[in-house]
Amino acid sequence: MPIQSFQPPVRTLLGPGPAEVHPRVLAAMSRPTIGHLDPAFVQMMDELKTLLQYAFMTENGMTMAVSAPGSAGMEACFTNLVEPGNKVIICDNGVFAGRMRENVERVGGTAIMVKDDWGRPIDPNKLNETLKANPDTQLVAFVHAETSTGALSDARTLIEIAHEFGALTIVDAVTSAGGSELRVDEWEIDAIYSGSQKCLSSAAGLSPLSMNNLAMERISKRRSKVPSWFLDVNLVTAYWHGGKRRSYHHTAPINNLYGLHEALVMLHQEGLENSWARHRQHHLALKAGLEAMNLRFLVEEPYRLPQLNAIIVPEGIDEAMVRQRLLNEYSIEIGAGLGDLSGKIWRIGLMGYSSNEKNVLFVLTALDEILGSMKAPILKGLAVEAAAAAYS
Amino acid sequence: MPIQSFQPPVRTLLGPGPAEVHPRVLAAMSRPTIGHLDPAFVQMMDELKTLLQYAFMTENGMTMAVSAPGSAGMEACFTNLVEPGNKVIICDNGVFAGRMRENVERVGGTAIMVKDDWGRPIDPNKLNETLKANPDTQLVAFVHAETSTGALSDARTLIEIAHEFGALTIVDAVTSAGGSELRVDEWEIDAIYSGSQKCLSSAAGLSPLSMNNLAMERISKRRSKVPSWFLDVNLVTAYWHGGKRRSYHHTAPINNLYGLHEALVMLHQEGLENSWARHRQHHLALKAGLEAMNLRFLVEEPYRLPQLNAIIVPEGIDEAMVRQRLLNEYSIEIGAGLGDLSGKIWRIGLMGYSSNEKNVLFVLTALDEILGSMKAPILKGLAVEAAAAAYS
Repeated sequence: MPIQSFQPPVRTLLGPGPAEVHPRVLAAMSRPTIGHLDPAFVQMMDELKTLLQYAFMTENGMTMAVSAPGSAGMEACFTNLVEPGNKVIICDNGVFAGRMRENVERVGGTAIMVKDDWGRPIDPNKLNETLKANPDTQLVAFVHAETSTGALSDARTLIEIAHEFGALTIVDAVTSAGGSELRVDEWEIDAIYSGSQKCLSSAAGLSPLSMNNLAMERISKRRSKVPSWFLDVNLVTAYWHGGKRRSYHHTAPINNLYGLHEALVMLHQEGLENSWARHRQHHLALKAGLEAMNLRFLVEEPYRLPQLNAIIVPEGIDEAMVRQRLLNEYSIEIGAGLGDLSGKIWRIGLMGYSSNEKNVLFVLTALDEILGSMKAPILKGLAVEAAAAAYS
Repeated sequence: MPIQSFQPPVRTLLGPGPAEVHPRVLAAMSRPTIGHLDPAFVQMMDELKTLLQYAFMTENGMTMAVSAPGSAGMEACFTNLVEPGNKVIICDNGVFAGRMRENVERVGGTAIMVKDDWGRPIDPNKLNETLKANPDTQLVAFVHAETSTGALSDARTLIEIAHEFGALTIVDAVTSAGGSELRVDEWEIDAIYSGSQKCLSSAAGLSPLSMNNLAMERISKRRSKVPSWFLDVNLVTAYWHGGKRRSYHHTAPINNLYGLHEALVMLHQEGLENSWARHRQHHLALKAGLEAMNLRFLVEEPYRLPQLNAIIVPEGIDEAMVRQRLLNEYSIEIGAGLGDLSGKIWRIGLMGYSSNEKNVLFVLTALDEILGSMKAPILKGLAVEAAAAAYS
């Protein structure tokens, strides 16, 4: 194996994440490293906290970025909030509910799964019934925007129901934050985590996390220590929010945090609502193009995520071959289906910096060419014009 | 609070880590993001594995980088290898043994601490005695190079003793890898973790990890699931080492891995033994300068780490003021003492790219000026010449 520097190809990233990273963010990541206790770095962390509060629409004091990817943000929520013997209801409409279940069971909790079909939003009535049958439930957890299917659930309603029964809520906002309406304080979300590499459009490796006072009180009343030292929020907050008396917990991913800071400065400059609107605008153009080709969405219109478009693979088409040709001939990445949807859908992400007109027109052109050459049952040559019309 | 891009100051990083990051590594981190399942990325990961095997001197198939800082690498070792009820001996000669204890106890193990004075290496005889008294010990854990004190322990001997009693070993090489002799296969280390931001001189946020077959077998025979889903090596290896059938586990910190890859390419180009020798060379020059000033080391010469120099604060000197003046007047970061050594020592790191002649001469000049102006009991004006002589 030759030992040499790695020069990645330049891709158009339209998969389920990572999204493309803006040159300003890449430049920020390559600024000189300073110490994680440097006064300048500590000030940057304070700003980053403020920016994350902005992105989450929260005033939660406990708002920070976990020094690891979204999966670790998920684990931070469960490992801190679940104690052995706790009952946790998990609304299951995609891949990530299964991961939540693993998180609950590995720390000794009992997971109660409330199933909905993949591609459907979570049914609030089923949650309500399950809570009636299990009034001793401590936590309700669900995915706001399911990356595996492209379905958006009604977080506000689900939280209201959970709270009626006195359960706290854990919300997975990995794919929603920055791309879909999300109001942590107004909706009274108790614990929420996201990922840096999707609609926030920073580099992968960080997980924004926020918890309200109810969640923090629950944690402070634990009878047992948090099983993870690395993710124990009591310890991590002493570093993130210790003011001038910050105590060392672990070495923060300094340069990666520079990048997230810059990505959030850009989000603030654009405006959060404008970012939601931009994601919707480019989704509508993509939709116009795909429908003009006669391709169909997995998810019904009212629940469709603008940032994750699950498209049904036409009859007789080798979906993997299409993705491979997109990559080889156009250097475009799109996503495959997961689990039961494997081979049945493509996932076209329009997340963060990837959500732009150039990318929409490019992927439609490429799909039109490739599917046309594979004799797919599509209407060829109409997609780009339809999308362009949607923009005008 | 103004919302604007963060421009870090340019520091000379001579603390206990992070070390300075070479411009080549910073440039690598700012290359375009690609997907974590992209064939080009997968090939980069294979190369990274080979480079990590080189840095650790191992052929362990299970060699990878945990997608989080060294603390998570530590936790990966304990959470996978310790089951409830297991007995773990922890050799304690500094801060990080306490963290190991937390790791053991939080997953239900029993920690037996073998104490040595801070600043001393671990005493193999005490380990031997403790194992005799506890022959049912499953694991022995220790820090190879104690970052909090600057003491190097004899890993090979400690491992031999552990193995005589049938215990596996977990070795913390956060500060040693790349800076001090470290031979994972020859010394028969069972599980080892390090950090990206010290002598490997990449950005913070990754933890190189390696386990031999004995450790992997132990994990495969667990009666209970690993408490952490994120750090479960059975799952992580399916992504890192799954060949063409890699299964998605979590989104890897893509750009940070570019950086680690580049840092390891540079280590390979320099040669591992040459890197050890370089760390020693600059340490000897620093030592010549410090001793010419009449400053003393905490650690006795045979056990002194070249990459972490613990210096005793002279009588009557406000150590925090010295660090603050180094930062404000020279933009130099050095470290404070931790725990019992707080206020008593400074820690001057010469790690990775920070270990060079320019930095040695600069910090000696700055210390000479500042301590001289504070009327410290030093011999002023001799340090730089003594260090320069050591280089010639």
